[in-house]
Amino acid sequence: MRVDGRANDELRNIRVTKDFMKNSAGSCLIEWGNTRILVTANYEMQVPKFLLDEGRGWLTAEYSMLPGSTIVRKQRERGKTDSRGTEIQRLIGRSLRSIVDFEKIPGMTITIDADVIEADGGTRTASITGGYIALKLLVRKLLKERIIKEDPLKSGLAAVSCGIVKEEALLDLCYREDSNAIADMNFVGNEKGEIAEIQISGEKRTVRDEEFFALLKLAKKGIAELIEIQRSVLED
Amino acid sequence: MRVDGRANDELRNIRVTKDFMKNSAGSCLIEWGNTRILVTANYEMQVPKFLLDEGRGWLTAEYSMLPGSTIVRKQRERGKTDSRGTEIQRLIGRSLRSIVDFEKIPGMTITIDADVIEADGGTRTASITGGYIALKLLVRKLLKERIIKEDPLKSGLAAVSCGIVKEEALLDLCYREDSNAIADMNFVGNEKGEIAEIQISGEKRTVRDEEFFALLKLAKKGIAELIEIQRSVLED
Amino acid sequence: MRVDGRANDELRNIRVTKDFMKNSAGSCLIEWGNTRILVTANYEMQVPKFLLDEGRGWLTAEYSMLPGSTIVRKQRERGKTDSRGTEIQRLIGRSLRSIVDFEKIPGMTITIDADVIEADGGTRTASITGGYIALKLLVRKLLKERIIKEDPLKSGLAAVSCGIVKEEALLDLCYREDSNAIADMNFVGNEKGEIAEIQISGEKRTVRDEEFFALLKLAKKGIAELIEIQRSVLED
Amino acid sequence: MRVDGRANDELRNIRVTKDFMKNSAGSCLIEWGNTRILVTANYEMQVPKFLLDEGRGWLTAEYSMLPGSTIVRKQRERGKTDSRGTEIQRLIGRSLRSIVDFEKIPGMTITIDADVIEADGGTRTASITGGYIALKLLVRKLLKERIIKEDPLKSGLAAVSCGIVKEEALLDLCYREDSNAIADMNFVGNEKGEIAEIQISGEKRTVRDEEFFALLKLAKKGIAELIEIQRSVLED
Amino acid sequence: MRVDGRANDELRNIRVTKDFMKNSAGSCLIEWGNTRILVTANYEMQVPKFLLDEGRGWLTAEYSMLPGSTIVRKQRERGKTDSRGTEIQRLIGRSLRSIVDFEKIPGMTITIDADVIEADGGTRTASITGGYIALKLLVRKLLKERIIKEDPLKSGLAAVSCGIVKEEALLDLCYREDSNAIADMNFVGNEKGEIAEIQISGEKRTVRDEEFFALLKLAKKGIAELIEIQRSVLED
Amino acid sequence: MRVDGRANDELRNIRVTKDFMKNSAGSCLIEWGNTRILVTANYEMQVPKFLLDEGRGWLTAEYSMLPGSTIVRKQRERGKTDSRGTEIQRLIGRSLRSIVDFEKIPGMTITIDADVIEADGGTRTASITGGYIALKLLVRKLLKERIIKEDPLKSGLAAVSCGIVKEEALLDLCYREDSNAIADMNFVGNEKGEIAEIQISGEKRTVRDEEFFALLKLAKKGIAELIEIQRSVLED
Repeated sequence: MRVDGRANDELRNIRVTKDFMKNSAGSCLIEWGNTRILVTANYEMQVPKFLLDEGRGWLTAEYSMLPGSTIVRKQRERGKTDSRGTEIQRLIGRSLRSIVDFEKIPGMTITIDADVIEADGGTRTASITGGYIALKLLVRKLLKERIIKEDPLKSGLAAVSCGIVKEEALLDLCYREDSNAIADMNFVGNEKGEIAEIQISGEKRTVRDEEFFALLKLAKKGIAELIEIQRSVLED
Repeated sequence: MRVDGRANDELRNIRVTKDFMKNSAGSCLIEWGNTRILVTANYEMQVPKFLLDEGRGWLTAEYSMLPGSTIVRKQRERGKTDSRGTEIQRLIGRSLRSIVDFEKIPGMTITIDADVIEADGGTRTASITGGYIALKLLVRKLLKERIIKEDPLKSGLAAVSCGIVKEEALLDLCYREDSNAIADMNFVGNEKGEIAEIQISGEKRTVRDEEFFALLKLAKKGIAELIEIQRSVLED
Repeated sequence: MRVDGRANDELRNIRVTKDFMKNSAGSCLIEWGNTRILVTANYEMQVPKFLLDEGRGWLTAEYSMLPGSTIVRKQRERGKTDSRGTEIQRLIGRSLRSIVDFEKIPGMTITIDADVIEADGGTRTASITGGYIALKLLVRKLLKERIIKEDPLKSGLAAVSCGIVKEEALLDLCYREDSNAIADMNFVGNEKGEIAEIQISGEKRTVRDEEFFALLKLAKKGIAELIEIQRSVLED
Repeated sequence: MRVDGRANDELRNIRVTKDFMKNSAGSCLIEWGNTRILVTANYEMQVPKFLLDEGRGWLTAEYSMLPGSTIVRKQRERGKTDSRGTEIQRLIGRSLRSIVDFEKIPGMTITIDADVIEADGGTRTASITGGYIALKLLVRKLLKERIIKEDPLKSGLAAVSCGIVKEEALLDLCYREDSNAIADMNFVGNEKGEIAEIQISGEKRTVRDEEFFALLKLAKKGIAELIEIQRSVLED
Repeated sequence: MRVDGRANDELRNIRVTKDFMKNSAGSCLIEWGNTRILVTANYEMQVPKFLLDEGRGWLTAEYSMLPGSTIVRKQRERGKTDSRGTEIQRLIGRSLRSIVDFEKIPGMTITIDADVIEADGGTRTASITGGYIALKLLVRKLLKERIIKEDPLKSGLAAVSCGIVKEEALLDLCYREDSNAIADMNFVGNEKGEIAEIQISGEKRTVRDEEFFALLKLAKKGIAELIEIQRSVLED
Repeated sequence: MRVDGRANDELRNIRVTKDFMKNSAGSCLIEWGNTRILVTANYEMQVPKFLLDEGRGWLTAEYSMLPGSTIVRKQRERGKTDSRGTEIQRLIGRSLRSIVDFEKIPGMTITIDADVIEADGGTRTASITGGYIALKLLVRKLLKERIIKEDPLKSGLAAVSCGIVKEEALLDLCYREDSNAIADMNFVGNEKGEIAEIQISGEKRTVRDEEFFALLKLAKKGIAELIEIQRSVLED
């Protein structure tokens, strides 16, 4: 049995508070088991240098952990670079960009900020899953205020982790499971079951094909459930 | 009348959620009007270089604003220094150090992290007021787990801002009031009415003595009420 | 008696050399007891981003200590930030801004540089007091060369420290006194006895009202004498 | 047909110069089509802080591009962080760590440096494939000089990219293909056909399962050929 | 006799591979004994701030060592400054600028990158000698593509080191000789025997005039031979 | 005639104030024409890593310009590196090291700080010339307080610049001359006429031998006079 009594293919409890912030256009607090992340979506009418005069927009993401979010206090990034955080925020940005039609937000850059308030595993996938919600809420506001004319989002998007722990394939690892995992996979997908991003990494040893396919199956199940959760949150 | 209908000597609504974090030893979420700050208190058995072999402890503070906490998204401090934040975190640390008996926590450094989730004025005073609560909760835990033998806290501590807006002295400025203030004061005091720190600054012009004394009186009233709020939160 | 034989309400000897620098528009060397600071005032026709198209000017200050200025050689700030220095230069800038009418220097930024050549306590207040002189000399030059039309300085400005040492209130602490102070106050005021900035901090314990008022009285006496010194230097 | 006339499942020409460097213990120059990377492997008897007293070793990787390696000169990383490079060097390190038994190199850190001399796509996979060779050469030297007793390498390791370009699945993308890819996959595997790491990313749109499986098949074919090339280089 | 059997006034073997890079306009690999340096020359139509609207061009140089280039792995410059490298790249830039007529490349900045692949003494002089070749190749290309109209190079340029080792004057020190040198000289000259730059430094003691003149004579002989090598490389 | 009426081989007026600082062990203010530099010499009982357990000492130098020292205010080095300053401070350190016997100051590092208060050409040579005086004063103090047993200084040391301006060889260039120089030489020598360091650089064109020898002669004359000035300052 798992450390928190879940079945191998069971997600943790997920609770989303929409519009958690007054000062950000789109936002949510996503609580995923004991992991809690505050995600905001903001925009500015300015694009990075490589897109000047291209008539397109852009989306970028930043990820950070509060010092108190981890069991041993995490030092702030002041002056130094957090290379794990760099990798994660690139993943968040790339994943969310895969569902945006940038022709529909010309000259605009959207910034997704994922700030981990409390960490108990799965922060990168929760950031993407919550990031989609914050992004959708921002888009609704932009449409309502007629700042953009068409919805640039081509589909929904969610992300989940899974991994091999003691030779068993488990969905949605908490921190204790994650730190004992032989292999670890992050899956980002849409509502049609398509893949935005997969990252699988053999932490302790290489992974056999049948193990990989077992993880893929778990991830797809998780994504389907998460897409449902997002839908009900956004319909509320 | 004030922008939010308060009397000139009236505090905003304040709500404190104790033990907001699982991963930090002491913590609270302080919601002060629309200002929301997450404060954590953590410790490590290590002291800064200048205290080596002194048989004493230390307390330090860090302050930061989440990017989405302000109306215009605030850039992260990565690589650059936020000089306003530097000034604020020095004030938080100095204020809280004034009530700690460092002989009672030999070899220990306590770190107070104040992370502004949403900003609507008064973030530095809310950080100190909430910081005291997080610190007290940490101390209780250290005493309970017999990591320290005696309570190092010499008294309670709270902080409040006040200022002169359109020639009137107002307690506890919200952002809109603060940005129009002629002068701005931050007062840190204890339950005996004593002063830990005063900072008054004539932003738009110099301040006359009678104006200063009116602000002092307002601040003292505010501190007394805040000490009461802290007491009831901590007794819960 | 005090370590250097002064009365409790007595300033140290102060000597100001006007126009110490050829390459800076306004400058002075201020020698205040053993503390020596070189202050320069320069300008450029450019304003910070947040003032673009506002038709106003700005004043900013930088403060630094030479490596040889302290008893133990002080490391240069190269690559790292000096948080104490950040706090001090913000105080210098804020204090001097309180007496400038920025409508009268549209599009201009004045920079005050205070470089501590030798430190023996009171460097921040000496920087402000000397900074006013350098600023006044710069303004005279700008008026003479018809770069500006009206004097933007609304009043004089001086600053002094005082503190509680061994339960006595003392004016103008030297380094040895300062490092033993229970509480420490910096007062910035103008020639009408008005307040530009007060910062009082209970370093070793909180401060009672009567102590604070004793310090205020000392500070006011000191400011009056400093304003006199500035006047005679500038009239020379 | 492909831009350089290759079949869809054909690798570019690969040439490896072993022991390219005199000053590094293990090294090779890997020329992969027009991509050229210099990879070195060095060691020191020291481990990162988190491994102190664990009786184990470590492997870390650094990746960088020479300024002249790209069509538009690439700025050096001096002072700034290259977030793409950070992501890549984490991948290189993680991949190579998956085949090292760290119990067999206690107290030792191996550093793999991959410096791109000329870039034409596939630099990260060439860095891993060449990195394995440099690592193997270093291990041989360590065994020969009796610095370690047993070979810590658990298997061979190679990496290859593939992607979907104009709806076709192609093996081993060159730069022109890569910049037009709809999706891009990097596969790291061993000689038994097992997975060390997969990263697939839908750059322009999400990816369907059948597309992903076509890429997987291509990648496996490529890995098998690369393992052969490594073997013959190392046997020479 | 010298450590590698050379006569006191004998250069090491020098081999130059022209156009080593596809992605850089001008380039060469210079192999000078065991020292190997990759030099590239690129340009952009942009000048530094201090040359705006001057109708002239500029040349700048950057120098760096690969981590694996030295016997003990050299840390990358990420985040920190390499002061020796700073000094060297200023010398390279200054030397090459002395032979460029900047009126003939208006609005253009040429960047010379010297990346040391393997270091065995004399890297700065090899960078200049190879830098001239890369620069010449770039200029030929610019002339051929009619980006510039006239050759801006006023003469050839080469550089060589020499030094006093065990009281003997030696030409072209390798690393082992260099680390034992009493004094060390770098000479940059043109084909007419004129001086672009001399740097002599008494590392272990001051140097007498006759020693200096002996070094000067050696250097001039070396420069003449190097100019010949450059000529034959460029004529190929 | 020269811009300030001097003969071609004439030094500017030089005035040295010994022991300018109370807080630094050795110090002087050197005023050299309009150039003014404050030089301090301090020590600590600690050596850089590469000298651990070598039983020797070390000397290092730092050079910086105050913001107000130049005609256009110079930005502080905070966060960025001043590459010209890096080159200069390496020259100062290397020059002064050439006359120190490090066996006589085991375990000690001496730091020379040269801070330019006002710049009018020749700051690097004035830093070395004044640096020798500050160093000598420090050594006297160390001998007097019996911190070291023998004088580690092997000889005197002074530095001077010279250059070719409008085809004439001039000694000791002021800023206006320096900015028009065709070639520029810095010479560091001792009282026996020996060379510690020469740097000659053809700024606008290459230099002929006879020009170089004319500069050498001027420099030697200047050094002899400077050594005399140092002697009389130190004997006072």
